[in-house]
Amino acid sequence: MRGKFIVVEGLEGAGKSSVIQLLVDCIEAAGHRCVTTREPGGTAMAEAIRECVKQPWDETVAQETELMLMYAARRQLLINKIFPALNDNVWVVGDRHELSSQAYQGGGRQIDAEIMATLSQITLKGFKPDLTLYLDVTPETGLQRARGRGELDRIEQEGMAFFKRTRERYLELAASDDTIITIDTMRSMELVHRDVIARIKAFLEC
Amino acid sequence: MRGKFIVVEGLEGAGKSSVIQLLVDCIEAAGHRCVTTREPGGTAMAEAIRECVKQPWDETVAQETELMLMYAARRQLLINKIFPALNDNVWVVGDRHELSSQAYQGGGRQIDAEIMATLSQITLKGFKPDLTLYLDVTPETGLQRARGRGELDRIEQEGMAFFKRTRERYLELAASDDTIITIDTMRSMELVHRDVIARIKAFLEC
Repeated sequence: MRGKFIVVEGLEGAGKSSVIQLLVDCIEAAGHRCVTTREPGGTAMAEAIRECVKQPWDETVAQETELMLMYAARRQLLINKIFPALNDNVWVVGDRHELSSQAYQGGGRQIDAEIMATLSQITLKGFKPDLTLYLDVTPETGLQRARGRGELDRIEQEGMAFFKRTRERYLELAASDDTIITIDTMRSMELVHRDVIARIKAFLEC
Repeated sequence: MRGKFIVVEGLEGAGKSSVIQLLVDCIEAAGHRCVTTREPGGTAMAEAIRECVKQPWDETVAQETELMLMYAARRQLLINKIFPALNDNVWVVGDRHELSSQAYQGGGRQIDAEIMATLSQITLKGFKPDLTLYLDVTPETGLQRARGRGELDRIEQEGMAFFKRTRERYLELAASDDTIITIDTMRSMELVHRDVIARIKAFLEC
Protein backbone atom coordinates (compact mmCIF):
# COMPACT_ATOMS: atom_id res chain seq x y z
CA MET A 1 0.00 0.00 0.00
CA ARG A 2 1.13 3.49 -0.74
CA GLY A 3 0.37 6.64 1.30
CA LYS A 4 -1.23 9.71 -0.22
CA PHE A 5 0.34 13.15 -0.60
CA ILE A 6 -1.99 16.00 0.32
CA VAL A 7 -0.85 19.60 -0.03
CA VAL A 8 -2.18 22.81 1.49
CA GLU A 9 -1.48 25.93 -0.53
CA GLY A 10 -2.25 29.63 -0.38
CA LEU A 11 -0.95 33.13 0.24
CA GLU A 12 0.47 34.16 3.60
CA GLY A 13 -2.39 34.49 6.08
CA ALA A 14 -4.66 32.07 4.24
CA GLY A 15 -4.86 29.90 7.36
CA LYS A 16 -2.73 26.95 6.22
CA SER A 17 -1.50 25.89 9.69
CA SER A 18 -4.88 25.20 11.28
CA VAL A 19 -6.12 23.45 8.12
CA ILE A 20 -3.04 21.21 8.13
CA GLN A 21 -3.76 20.21 11.75
CA LEU A 22 -7.36 19.46 10.82
CA LEU A 23 -6.26 17.27 7.90
CA VAL A 24 -3.80 15.34 10.06
CA ASP A 25 -6.54 14.71 12.64
CA CYS A 26 -8.98 13.42 9.97
CA ILE A 27 -6.37 11.24 8.28
CA GLU A 28 -5.23 9.70 11.58
CA ALA A 29 -8.84 9.22 12.68
CA ALA A 30 -9.32 7.18 9.51
CA GLY A 31 -6.53 4.87 10.69
CA HIS A 32 -3.61 6.10 8.57
CA ARG A 33 -0.17 7.07 9.77
CA CYS A 34 0.57 10.65 8.77
CA VAL A 35 3.51 13.09 8.73
CA THR A 36 3.72 16.77 7.81
CA THR A 37 6.30 18.61 5.71
CA ARG A 38 6.92 22.23 4.85
CA GLU A 39 8.47 23.84 1.77
CA PRO A 40 11.01 25.10 1.28
CA GLY A 41 12.57 22.97 4.02
CA GLY A 42 11.83 19.71 5.78
CA THR A 43 15.33 18.17 5.78
CA ALA A 44 18.49 19.60 7.32
CA MET A 45 19.89 20.56 3.91
CA ALA A 46 16.54 21.87 2.64
CA GLU A 47 16.20 24.02 5.77
CA ALA A 48 19.67 25.48 5.10
CA ILE A 49 18.52 26.26 1.54
CA ARG A 50 15.31 27.79 2.96
CA GLU A 51 17.44 30.08 5.13
CA CYS A 52 19.38 31.16 2.00
CA VAL A 53 16.26 31.94 0.03
CA LYS A 54 14.18 33.56 2.77
CA GLN A 55 16.64 35.86 4.51
CA PRO A 56 17.27 39.39 3.25
CA TRP A 57 20.60 39.83 1.42
CA ASP A 58 22.65 42.93 0.75
CA GLU A 59 22.86 41.99 -2.95
CA THR A 60 20.45 41.49 -5.84
CA VAL A 61 18.76 38.11 -5.51
CA ALA A 62 18.16 36.94 -9.08
CA GLN A 63 14.76 35.44 -9.88
CA GLU A 64 16.53 32.44 -11.36
CA THR A 65 18.51 31.95 -8.14
CA GLU A 66 15.39 32.01 -6.00
CA LEU A 67 13.67 29.56 -8.34
CA MET A 68 16.57 27.09 -8.47
CA LEU A 69 16.90 27.17 -4.67
CA MET A 70 13.19 26.43 -4.25
CA TYR A 71 13.44 23.42 -6.55
CA ALA A 72 16.73 22.27 -4.98
CA ALA A 73 15.10 22.23 -1.53
CA ARG A 74 12.07 20.44 -3.01
CA ARG A 75 14.23 17.69 -4.49
CA GLN A 76 15.87 17.08 -1.10
CA LEU A 77 12.50 16.85 0.63
CA LEU A 78 11.10 14.51 -2.01
CA ILE A 79 13.86 11.93 -1.97
CA ASN A 80 14.60 12.05 1.76
CA LYS A 81 11.12 12.45 3.25
CA ILE A 82 8.12 12.38 0.94
CA PHE A 83 8.97 9.37 -1.26
CA PRO A 84 10.15 7.16 1.65
CA ALA A 85 7.01 8.00 3.67
CA LEU A 86 4.60 7.31 0.80
CA ASN A 87 6.39 4.04 0.01
CA ASP A 88 5.98 3.05 3.66
CA ASN A 89 2.20 3.64 3.43
CA VAL A 90 2.46 6.84 5.47
CA TRP A 91 0.32 9.79 4.37
CA VAL A 92 2.07 13.14 3.94
CA VAL A 93 0.41 16.53 4.47
CA GLY A 94 2.55 19.24 2.91
CA ASP A 95 2.63 22.92 3.88
CA ARG A 96 3.22 24.10 0.27
CA HIS A 97 4.64 22.17 -2.68
CA GLU A 98 5.25 22.91 -6.33
CA LEU A 99 2.08 24.94 -6.79
CA SER A 100 3.74 27.64 -4.66
CA SER A 101 6.59 27.95 -7.16
CA GLN A 102 4.12 28.05 -10.03
CA ALA A 103 2.14 30.79 -8.28
CA TYR A 104 4.87 32.90 -6.61
CA GLN A 105 7.73 32.57 -9.09
CA GLY A 106 5.72 31.82 -12.23
CA GLY A 107 2.81 34.16 -11.47
CA GLY A 108 4.19 36.71 -9.00
CA ARG A 109 7.66 37.05 -10.55
CA GLN A 110 6.41 36.27 -14.06
CA ILE A 111 9.18 33.79 -14.80
CA ASP A 112 8.94 32.18 -18.21
CA ALA A 113 6.63 29.13 -18.36
CA GLU A 114 9.21 27.05 -20.20
CA ILE A 115 11.81 27.60 -17.46
CA MET A 116 9.22 26.64 -14.84
CA ALA A 117 8.29 23.48 -16.73
CA THR A 118 11.92 22.45 -17.12
CA LEU A 119 12.79 22.83 -13.43
CA SER A 120 9.63 20.95 -12.58
CA GLN A 121 10.69 18.10 -14.85
CA ILE A 122 14.23 18.00 -13.42
CA THR A 123 12.93 17.95 -9.84
CA LEU A 124 9.64 16.07 -9.87
CA LYS A 125 9.94 13.90 -13.01
CA GLY A 126 6.14 13.85 -13.29
CA PHE A 127 5.32 13.29 -9.59
CA LYS A 128 2.36 15.27 -8.27
CA PRO A 129 0.20 15.42 -5.13
CA ASP A 130 -2.92 13.26 -4.88
CA LEU A 131 -4.92 16.22 -3.58
CA THR A 132 -4.25 19.93 -3.08
CA LEU A 133 -6.38 22.28 -1.02
CA TYR A 134 -5.82 25.82 -2.20
CA LEU A 135 -6.93 28.23 0.53
CA ASP A 136 -8.00 31.35 -1.30
CA VAL A 137 -7.63 34.75 0.35
CA THR A 138 -7.19 38.25 -1.06
CA PRO A 139 -3.66 39.62 -0.57
CA GLU A 140 -5.07 42.49 1.50
CA THR A 141 -6.73 40.21 4.05
CA GLY A 142 -3.96 37.60 3.99
CA LEU A 143 -1.14 40.08 4.58
CA GLN A 144 -3.09 41.79 7.34
CA ARG A 145 -3.40 38.42 9.10
CA ALA A 146 0.27 37.55 8.43
CA ARG A 147 1.54 40.90 9.70
CA GLY A 148 -0.29 40.26 12.96
CA ARG A 149 2.03 37.24 13.43
CA GLY A 150 5.29 39.22 13.29
CA GLU A 151 8.08 40.07 10.90
CA LEU A 152 7.79 39.28 7.19
CA ASP A 153 10.57 37.46 5.32
CA ARG A 154 12.23 38.62 2.08
CA ILE A 155 9.53 37.27 -0.22
CA GLU A 156 6.68 38.35 2.06
CA GLN A 157 7.98 41.92 1.78
CA GLU A 158 7.01 42.12 -1.91
CA GLY A 159 4.46 44.70 -3.05
CA MET A 160 0.71 44.16 -3.42
CA ALA A 161 0.91 43.74 -7.22
CA PHE A 162 3.19 40.72 -6.73
CA PHE A 163 0.68 39.01 -4.44
CA LYS A 164 -2.21 39.84 -6.75
CA ARG A 165 -0.41 38.13 -9.64
CA THR A 166 0.40 35.20 -7.33
CA ARG A 167 -3.24 34.77 -6.29
CA GLU A 168 -4.42 35.03 -9.90
CA ARG A 169 -2.05 32.26 -10.93
CA TYR A 170 -3.22 30.11 -8.01
CA LEU A 171 -6.84 30.55 -9.13
CA GLU A 172 -6.01 29.79 -12.77
CA LEU A 173 -4.08 26.65 -11.91
CA ALA A 174 -6.75 25.45 -9.49
CA ALA A 175 -9.42 25.92 -12.16
CA SER A 176 -7.51 23.80 -14.67
CA ASP A 177 -6.68 20.81 -12.43
CA ASP A 178 -9.25 18.43 -10.91
CA THR A 179 -6.90 17.48 -8.07
CA ILE A 180 -6.77 21.08 -6.77
CA ILE A 181 -9.75 22.21 -4.69
CA THR A 182 -10.23 25.91 -3.98
CA ILE A 183 -11.47 26.74 -0.48
CA ASP A 184 -12.75 30.26 0.09
CA THR A 185 -11.22 31.45 3.38
CA MET A 186 -12.93 34.83 3.40
CA ARG A 187 -15.57 33.27 5.63
CA SER A 188 -15.72 32.37 9.32
CA MET A 189 -13.12 29.84 10.39
CA GLU A 190 -15.94 27.48 11.37
CA LEU A 191 -17.32 27.41 7.82
CA VAL A 192 -13.85 27.02 6.32
CA HIS A 193 -13.04 24.09 8.59
CA ARG A 194 -16.39 22.42 7.94
CA ASP A 195 -15.62 22.66 4.20
CA VAL A 196 -12.12 21.21 4.67
CA ILE A 197 -13.47 18.29 6.73
CA ALA A 198 -16.07 17.50 4.07
CA ARG A 199 -13.40 17.53 1.34
CA ILE A 200 -10.93 15.30 3.14
CA LYS A 201 -13.67 12.86 4.22
CA ALA A 202 -14.82 12.55 0.61
CA PHE A 203 -11.21 11.91 -0.43
CA LEU A 204 -10.67 9.34 2.35
CA GLU A 205 -13.76 7.43 1.24
CA CYS A 206 -12.66 7.18 -2.39
CA MET B 1 35.41 49.41 -23.03
CA ARG B 2 34.51 46.06 -21.59
CA GLY B 3 36.74 43.85 -19.41
CA LYS B 4 37.51 40.25 -20.28
CA PHE B 5 36.51 37.15 -18.34
CA ILE B 6 39.25 34.57 -17.98
CA VAL B 7 38.60 31.28 -16.20
CA VAL B 8 40.97 28.74 -14.69
CA GLU B 9 39.63 25.20 -14.55
CA GLY B 10 40.79 21.77 -13.50
CA LEU B 11 40.59 18.96 -10.97
CA GLU B 12 41.56 19.47 -7.36
CA GLY B 13 45.35 19.72 -7.14
CA ALA B 14 45.76 20.95 -10.72
CA GLY B 15 47.48 24.09 -9.41
CA LYS B 16 44.75 26.66 -10.09
CA SER B 17 45.68 29.09 -7.29
CA SER B 18 49.21 29.88 -8.42
CA VAL B 19 48.10 30.12 -12.06
CA ILE B 20 45.38 32.59 -11.07
CA GLN B 21 47.96 34.76 -9.29
CA LEU B 22 50.18 34.63 -12.36
CA LEU B 23 47.30 35.69 -14.62
CA VAL B 24 46.37 38.60 -12.35
CA ASP B 25 49.99 39.79 -12.37
CA CYS B 26 50.20 39.65 -16.19
CA ILE B 27 46.84 41.38 -16.68
CA GLU B 28 47.69 44.15 -14.24
CA ALA B 29 51.16 44.54 -15.77
CA ALA B 30 49.39 45.15 -19.09
CA GLY B 31 47.57 48.09 -17.47
CA HIS B 32 44.16 46.54 -16.78
CA ARG B 33 42.25 46.56 -13.53
CA CYS B 34 41.53 42.99 -12.45
CA VAL B 35 39.50 41.13 -9.82
CA THR B 36 39.26 37.44 -8.98
CA THR B 37 36.18 35.30 -8.25
CA ARG B 38 35.63 31.73 -7.15
CA GLU B 39 32.80 29.30 -7.82
CA PRO B 40 30.65 28.30 -6.19
CA GLY B 41 30.75 31.49 -4.13
CA GLY B 42 31.96 35.04 -4.53
CA THR B 43 28.98 36.92 -3.03
CA ALA B 44 27.53 36.59 0.48
CA MET B 45 24.54 34.61 -0.78
CA ALA B 46 26.62 32.50 -3.16
CA GLU B 47 29.04 31.65 -0.32
CA ALA B 48 26.05 30.51 1.78
CA ILE B 49 24.96 28.32 -1.14
CA ARG B 50 28.56 27.03 -1.44
CA GLU B 51 28.44 26.02 2.22
CA CYS B 52 25.18 24.11 1.54
CA VAL B 53 26.62 22.24 -1.41
CA LYS B 54 30.11 21.51 -0.07
CA GLN B 55 29.46 20.38 3.50
CA PRO B 56 28.68 16.76 4.31
CA TRP B 57 24.99 16.09 5.11
CA ASP B 58 23.37 13.25 7.01
CA GLU B 59 20.89 12.75 4.13
CA THR B 60 21.05 11.80 0.46
CA VAL B 61 22.15 14.82 -1.57
CA ALA B 62 20.36 14.47 -4.91
CA GLN B 63 22.41 15.09 -8.05
CA GLU B 64 19.75 17.54 -9.20
CA THR B 65 19.99 19.45 -5.91
CA GLU B 66 23.75 19.78 -6.21
CA LEU B 67 23.42 20.91 -9.81
CA MET B 68 20.74 23.53 -9.12
CA LEU B 69 22.71 24.92 -6.18
CA MET B 70 25.82 25.28 -8.34
CA TYR B 71 23.87 27.21 -10.97
CA ALA B 72 22.02 29.29 -8.35
CA ALA B 73 25.36 30.41 -6.87
CA ARG B 74 26.66 31.10 -10.39
CA ARG B 75 23.71 33.35 -11.20
CA GLN B 76 24.32 35.40 -8.03
CA LEU B 77 27.99 35.82 -8.88
CA LEU B 78 27.25 36.79 -12.47
CA ILE B 79 24.75 39.53 -11.78
CA ASN B 80 26.38 40.93 -8.63
CA LYS B 81 30.08 40.65 -9.47
CA ILE B 82 31.10 39.46 -12.93
CA PHE B 83 28.74 41.51 -15.13
CA PRO B 84 29.23 44.79 -13.18
CA ALA B 85 33.04 44.36 -13.28
CA LEU B 86 33.17 43.61 -17.02
CA ASN B 87 30.87 46.54 -17.75
CA ASP B 88 33.22 48.77 -15.75
CA ASN B 89 36.16 47.62 -17.92
CA VAL B 90 37.58 45.50 -15.13
CA TRP B 91 39.00 42.11 -16.06
CA VAL B 92 37.80 39.09 -14.09
CA VAL B 93 39.86 35.97 -13.40
CA GLY B 94 37.59 33.18 -12.22
CA ASP B 95 38.57 30.17 -10.12
CA ARG B 96 36.12 27.82 -11.89
CA HIS B 97 32.99 28.65 -13.89
CA GLU B 98 30.44 26.67 -15.85
CA LEU B 99 32.96 24.22 -17.29
CA SER B 100 33.24 22.78 -13.76
CA SER B 101 29.53 21.92 -13.75
CA GLN B 102 29.81 20.42 -17.22
CA ALA B 103 32.79 18.31 -16.11
CA TYR B 104 31.88 17.35 -12.52
CA GLN B 105 28.09 17.12 -12.72
CA GLY B 106 27.73 16.35 -16.44
CA GLY B 107 30.80 14.10 -16.73
CA GLY B 108 31.50 12.88 -13.18
CA ARG B 109 27.87 12.44 -12.12
CA GLN B 110 26.68 11.66 -15.67
CA ILE B 111 23.71 14.02 -15.48
CA ASP B 112 21.69 14.18 -18.66
CA ALA B 113 23.04 16.62 -21.28
CA GLU B 114 19.63 18.19 -21.85
CA ILE B 115 19.26 19.06 -18.14
CA MET B 116 22.75 20.58 -18.18
CA ALA B 117 21.95 22.66 -21.27
CA THR B 118 18.70 23.93 -19.78
CA LEU B 119 20.24 25.07 -16.49
CA SER B 120 23.01 26.70 -18.47
CA GLN B 121 20.46 28.61 -20.53
CA ILE B 122 18.47 29.70 -17.45
CA THR B 123 21.61 30.91 -15.68
CA LEU B 124 23.97 32.21 -18.37
CA LYS B 125 21.62 33.06 -21.24
CA GLY B 126 24.46 32.51 -23.70
CA PHE B 127 27.22 34.30 -21.76
CA LYS B 128 30.62 32.58 -21.80
CA PRO B 129 34.22 33.35 -20.78
CA ASP B 130 36.58 35.01 -23.26
CA LEU B 131 39.31 32.53 -22.41
CA THR B 132 39.54 29.39 -20.26
CA LEU B 133 42.76 27.73 -19.17
CA TYR B 134 42.09 24.11 -18.34
CA LEU B 135 44.89 22.79 -16.15
CA ASP B 136 45.06 19.09 -16.92
CA VAL B 137 46.17 16.64 -14.25
CA THR B 138 45.44 12.96 -13.66
CA PRO B 139 43.10 12.34 -10.71
CA GLU B 140 45.81 10.30 -8.99
CA THR B 141 48.35 13.13 -9.02
CA GLY B 142 45.77 15.87 -8.40
CA LEU B 143 44.20 14.21 -5.38
CA GLN B 144 47.61 13.40 -3.93
CA ARG B 145 48.48 17.11 -4.13
CA ALA B 146 45.05 18.15 -2.75
CA ARG B 147 45.22 15.73 0.17
CA GLY B 148 48.51 17.29 1.20
CA ARG B 149 46.58 20.54 1.76
CA GLY B 150 44.16 19.08 4.34
CA GLU B 151 40.62 17.77 4.58
CA LEU B 152 38.56 17.09 1.46
CA ASP B 153 34.98 18.41 1.08
CA ARG B 154 31.89 16.34 0.20
CA ILE B 155 32.53 16.36 -3.55
CA GLU B 156 36.28 15.85 -3.20
CA GLN B 157 35.56 12.63 -1.29
CA GLU B 158 34.16 10.94 -4.42
CA GLY B 159 35.83 7.82 -5.77
CA MET B 160 38.53 7.69 -8.44
CA ALA B 161 36.07 6.66 -11.21
CA PHE B 162 34.15 9.91 -10.64
CA PHE B 163 37.27 12.03 -11.13
CA LYS B 164 38.32 10.02 -14.18
CA ARG B 165 34.97 10.73 -15.83
CA THR B 166 35.30 14.39 -14.81
CA ARG B 167 38.76 14.69 -16.37
CA GLU B 168 37.60 12.93 -19.54
CA ARG B 169 34.75 15.41 -19.93
CA TYR B 170 37.13 18.33 -19.34
CA LEU B 171 39.39 17.03 -22.11
CA GLU B 172 36.49 16.45 -24.51
CA LEU B 173 35.05 19.92 -23.93
CA ALA B 174 38.44 21.59 -24.23
CA ALA B 175 39.07 19.79 -27.54
CA SER B 176 35.79 21.05 -28.99
CA ASP B 177 36.07 24.74 -28.03
CA ASP B 178 38.72 27.16 -29.36
CA THR B 179 38.40 29.41 -26.29
CA ILE B 180 39.52 26.62 -23.95
CA ILE B 181 43.27 25.96 -23.80
CA THR B 182 44.56 22.78 -22.18
CA ILE B 183 47.72 23.16 -20.11
CA ASP B 184 49.52 19.97 -19.13
CA THR B 185 50.41 20.34 -15.45
CA MET B 186 52.21 17.00 -15.17
CA ARG B 187 55.45 18.93 -15.74
CA SER B 188 57.62 21.12 -13.53
CA MET B 189 55.86 24.19 -12.17
CA GLU B 190 58.39 26.34 -14.03
CA LEU B 191 57.36 24.91 -17.41
CA VAL B 192 53.65 25.17 -16.56
CA HIS B 193 53.98 28.81 -15.56
CA ARG B 194 56.04 29.63 -18.65
CA ASP B 195 53.26 28.11 -20.77
CA VAL B 196 50.56 30.08 -18.90
CA ILE B 197 52.47 33.35 -19.33
CA ALA B 198 52.86 32.74 -23.07
CA ARG B 199 49.13 32.04 -23.41
CA ILE B 200 47.95 35.10 -21.51
CA LYS B 201 50.46 37.37 -23.28
CA ALA B 202 49.19 36.16 -26.65
CA PHE B 203 45.63 36.83 -25.49
CA LEU B 204 46.49 40.30 -24.17
CA GLU B 205 48.05 41.24 -27.50
CA CYS B 206 44.98 40.24 -29.52
